[in-house]
Amino acid sequence: MNQAFTRFESISSSPGAASKASLRDLILSNDLAFLMEAHDGLSAAIATQAGFKGLWASGLSISSSLGYRDANEASWTQVVDVVEHIVDATDVPVLVDGDSGFGNFNNARLLARKLEQRGASGVVIEDKGFPKMNSFVGDRHPLADINEFSGRLKAVKDTASSDFVLVARIEALIAGHSLDEALIRAHAYAEAGADAILIHSRKAVADEILAFAQAWANRLPVIIVPTKYFRTPVSNYRNAGISTVIWANHNMRAAIAGMRNICSRIHSDESIAAIEEQVAGLDELFSLIGYDELARAEERYLPGPRK
Amino acid sequence: MNQAFTRFESISSSPGAASKASLRDLILSNDLAFLMEAHDGLSAAIATQAGFKGLWASGLSISSSLGYRDANEASWTQVVDVVEHIVDATDVPVLVDGDSGFGNFNNARLLARKLEQRGASGVVIEDKGFPKMNSFVGDRHPLADINEFSGRLKAVKDTASSDFVLVARIEALIAGHSLDEALIRAHAYAEAGADAILIHSRKAVADEILAFAQAWANRLPVIIVPTKYFRTPVSNYRNAGISTVIWANHNMRAAIAGMRNICSRIHSDESIAAIEEQVAGLDELFSLIGYDELARAEERYLPGPRK
Amino acid sequence: MNQAFTRFESISSSPGAASKASLRDLILSNDLAFLMEAHDGLSAAIATQAGFKGLWASGLSISSSLGYRDANEASWTQVVDVVEHIVDATDVPVLVDGDSGFGNFNNARLLARKLEQRGASGVVIEDKGFPKMNSFVGDRHPLADINEFSGRLKAVKDTASSDFVLVARIEALIAGHSLDEALIRAHAYAEAGADAILIHSRKAVADEILAFAQAWANRLPVIIVPTKYFRTPVSNYRNAGISTVIWANHNMRAAIAGMRNICSRIHSDESIAAIEEQVAGLDELFSLIGYDELARAEERYLPGPRK
Amino acid sequence: MNQAFTRFESISSSPGAASKASLRDLILSNDLAFLMEAHDGLSAAIATQAGFKGLWASGLSISSSLGYRDANEASWTQVVDVVEHIVDATDVPVLVDGDSGFGNFNNARLLARKLEQRGASGVVIEDKGFPKMNSFVGDRHPLADINEFSGRLKAVKDTASSDFVLVARIEALIAGHSLDEALIRAHAYAEAGADAILIHSRKAVADEILAFAQAWANRLPVIIVPTKYFRTPVSNYRNAGISTVIWANHNMRAAIAGMRNICSRIHSDESIAAIEEQVAGLDELFSLIGYDELARAEERYLPGPRK
Repeated sequence: MNQAFTRFESISSSPGAASKASLRDLILSNDLAFLMEAHDGLSAAIATQAGFKGLWASGLSISSSLGYRDANEASWTQVVDVVEHIVDATDVPVLVDGDSGFGNFNNARLLARKLEQRGASGVVIEDKGFPKMNSFVGDRHPLADINEFSGRLKAVKDTASSDFVLVARIEALIAGHSLDEALIRAHAYAEAGADAILIHSRKAVADEILAFAQAWANRLPVIIVPTKYFRTPVSNYRNAGISTVIWANHNMRAAIAGMRNICSRIHSDESIAAIEEQVAGLDELFSLIGYDELARAEERYLPGPRK
Repeated sequence: MNQAFTRFESISSSPGAASKASLRDLILSNDLAFLMEAHDGLSAAIATQAGFKGLWASGLSISSSLGYRDANEASWTQVVDVVEHIVDATDVPVLVDGDSGFGNFNNARLLARKLEQRGASGVVIEDKGFPKMNSFVGDRHPLADINEFSGRLKAVKDTASSDFVLVARIEALIAGHSLDEALIRAHAYAEAGADAILIHSRKAVADEILAFAQAWANRLPVIIVPTKYFRTPVSNYRNAGISTVIWANHNMRAAIAGMRNICSRIHSDESIAAIEEQVAGLDELFSLIGYDELARAEERYLPGPRK
Repeated sequence: MNQAFTRFESISSSPGAASKASLRDLILSNDLAFLMEAHDGLSAAIATQAGFKGLWASGLSISSSLGYRDANEASWTQVVDVVEHIVDATDVPVLVDGDSGFGNFNNARLLARKLEQRGASGVVIEDKGFPKMNSFVGDRHPLADINEFSGRLKAVKDTASSDFVLVARIEALIAGHSLDEALIRAHAYAEAGADAILIHSRKAVADEILAFAQAWANRLPVIIVPTKYFRTPVSNYRNAGISTVIWANHNMRAAIAGMRNICSRIHSDESIAAIEEQVAGLDELFSLIGYDELARAEERYLPGPRK
Repeated sequence: MNQAFTRFESISSSPGAASKASLRDLILSNDLAFLMEAHDGLSAAIATQAGFKGLWASGLSISSSLGYRDANEASWTQVVDVVEHIVDATDVPVLVDGDSGFGNFNNARLLARKLEQRGASGVVIEDKGFPKMNSFVGDRHPLADINEFSGRLKAVKDTASSDFVLVARIEALIAGHSLDEALIRAHAYAEAGADAILIHSRKAVADEILAFAQAWANRLPVIIVPTKYFRTPVSNYRNAGISTVIWANHNMRAAIAGMRNICSRIHSDESIAAIEEQVAGLDELFSLIGYDELARAEERYLPGPRK
């Protein structure tokens, strides 16, 4: 959490802000942590207001919000700029989906350096090549060579500050490889300096995730993304000693549903009278974005006439 | 509509795309036109999918989405970049909220030039100074000098191509001035080259808008933004000869409501099982953003192995 | 040349502007054409003022000016933004160094689309992978697979308008392959839709370039970059039927020499008195960047007091 | 100086880097300090290499390099992005020309916050309005109201960290006002929290600057910009107790002269043979931008084949 560059005054502006946990604390603690997806300043403010203690800057959601496919169409600096808006709109730590690092070790460490500069608290790098395809689209995406990917991790580790959290994301299970392959990779990535392992699966049940967690035995904290196995009760994750659950794209998908329904209704009604109560009021918006701080600042900094 | 730079394949990709109306046609036609707010690529795709024939790139919504207050915190190039994403995600024309033009005549014409380059179809410039405050926040924002503002309009008119639509937005009623003041300004702005007049009001009823329309007698097309007088039936606007209605911020407000509800539910449930059906599926997202085009392009352009 | 978005008034603002040759004309004409490197708006204005009929937006020079290594550290959108500044500061066509296309066919066509939107007249794509290393640094950079690279070319060709010039850059000679390999690639790239071939060499003599030109027999126009074989007389290129010569980084290298000498002198003198005559006057700068147009525009668009 | 985000390895990469003075130390020390202008990463690297202990990110030079006039055509975020490149290419502190703060107090503090985030060490804000005109162009630019401008300074002071240096630039003398007016403003700005005063003049002699310095008696450190009174010996500034001299645009003007001469010669020669010795070699460039670090990093992070 980069307190210095948080927006002028944030959602909560509560006295408790000082005691917010760092991303490292969230991931290392014995409590199961939850990160909520954000893809712009507004979604970050909403997730923070809802009480989430950390945010996930999702590559899929950020791409979608920009109108891009999740295939590295958005440039790495466009992603960094969006992350800056997310960080500036919240006072909780932000973990960033860094895809495969946008190239080789050099691109990955440049990305990490700039993400940290903009106030992100950590980055996830996955063991695939550039450009990537979204894990849920198509089959058999080739995995990165273990040594080459370990070099990417080492380079990030050597570049970032010690507070910055480096997560290695393993795509072996998604790519149809065995649990053993996933474990071999997890060990190599831990060796290379990863602070945590994100094990990804697109099965409708959590079996392979839980099997991995059991075999891995928490050598490093385990992070999961239950987008596909959404029915698994969270108690299973607690029992398995999972560190962190990422709700990976649900803010964006909630926004789509909300906008699609309202657009459809306004279009057929040729009127907004019926939906006024269903959409957020401007007061809610102004509160989310901190207009009160601006009003107070005008009192303090603007001379006479405009007061 | 800048066909050349629309995203690779758009939402509809319908044969009717060629017959989509230009913004000028929409505003000049005898049919009442409706523009739906968009603030990023995703919201633009959704509004297009819903059938809207034109979009409104709202300053308030774009600022909010970036996490900024609507007080010219976002730089003019940040706004231009967002407009580019909006244009690239739709095949209908986009009218852009240019605030006061981000400075003097020179800033206004630079903004217009870049908006047109990125594919926007028109810009609205309002007769206030820089930096602005949102029209719904605070009172008594000073109006721009008529001559100075007319210079801004002329500069934009001389800079943009003849297809580009220049709309003069009159804030006189909002600032507490009389209908006469609004009309004097409308005449001056028409003289300076405006293609249409946006008359703004924050009353809960449309009386002053309709009075303006009657007195103005369509010397130029009239555009309105019924955010506050949302209950007025659209037939009143048709009867009054209004050209265009802007639903100015309802996509963003729908997104807030959607995200706030889902965040709250996920946070209290510690689960996404219950909300899976309420949020959009990934298939809906992939369709909105054109993943099918990418799959077909991979077939065409990628050699063997990845096929 | 994208007349519409050229800066408000350019260096020459001469009546001859309308008759400036397009990039396609320059490359196809029987006259040997020369493109001068530019890396920002200022260098573009200077090269235009000097009389060059086309500019080369060099990847090496743009990277260097940003402070990046020429190893795809600069993101593709950062490059596009710089190209926009170059285009806006000149009224002659700009050919852009697109490196390897910043990824696969999809990244390459996205790059081309955005370059054309910003007013560039063409792009060069080279048959290497991402991220690239500068051709003059290190050895044995692997070449792209011919089929895969041809897919990149086809995708760009299908995306860009027919005015946009697509140049395939062959790195075979630089990578230590034979003339035959270079020719095989040239034929494949012509087949894939390239409008011209850039054959690159880092030898101190032009022998392999001239051998290529002879064997190729102008099936498509040939473009060369004599950075290393700078002593070869230009008559050799005319005799060989070369289409276009790119002076690839000499503006940037001239700027370095100029700045290094002045910095050194000011630092040791603790004074600017001795160097005032050696640096450009502000009047020269103001003329290059068109301050006169702004003064005239203020007369036209600003009301009373400031006049 | 934001050590953490400096480029991977800098020009000097000397053991002395750790002992580089902060901007505050430079300005407060009894030694006369010199800041050299930079306008991009490359010029920053060159000035650092020459031995300057601090850099001046000039608004005029940055605008010019982008191809913009110095009239706030470049957006505030474009300036911030350039400053980031400057900071990343040097290991000495950077003072930024913040013009008038790009609007009111709110824009000024947002600018300061982002400049600090990107690693700048301080900002100069001048007592004029938005948009500004360059001080050397035209006459009688109106000054800002003292109270309003003091609010801008207070807002920046309250926003930035205590290490960040806030300089108030007084344009009174340039605007034709008296020494008394300049002094009244200096006192007000000191009261408002400025850390130093930049007193600007466009006379060919330093008389009014020296008169100001004498009357001011170093209540706060004084910074000067002798672009127009370049013949004044630096001993006069030492005697007058001036804190810091800014060589404000000489890197850019040296680059213009260098590029103009080389462009002219190449254009008339149709050859680069004669100028090869006059421009910087690629080795000099590679050394400036740190290609050696990249080579070493490849050794460390890339596995087998590419080694």
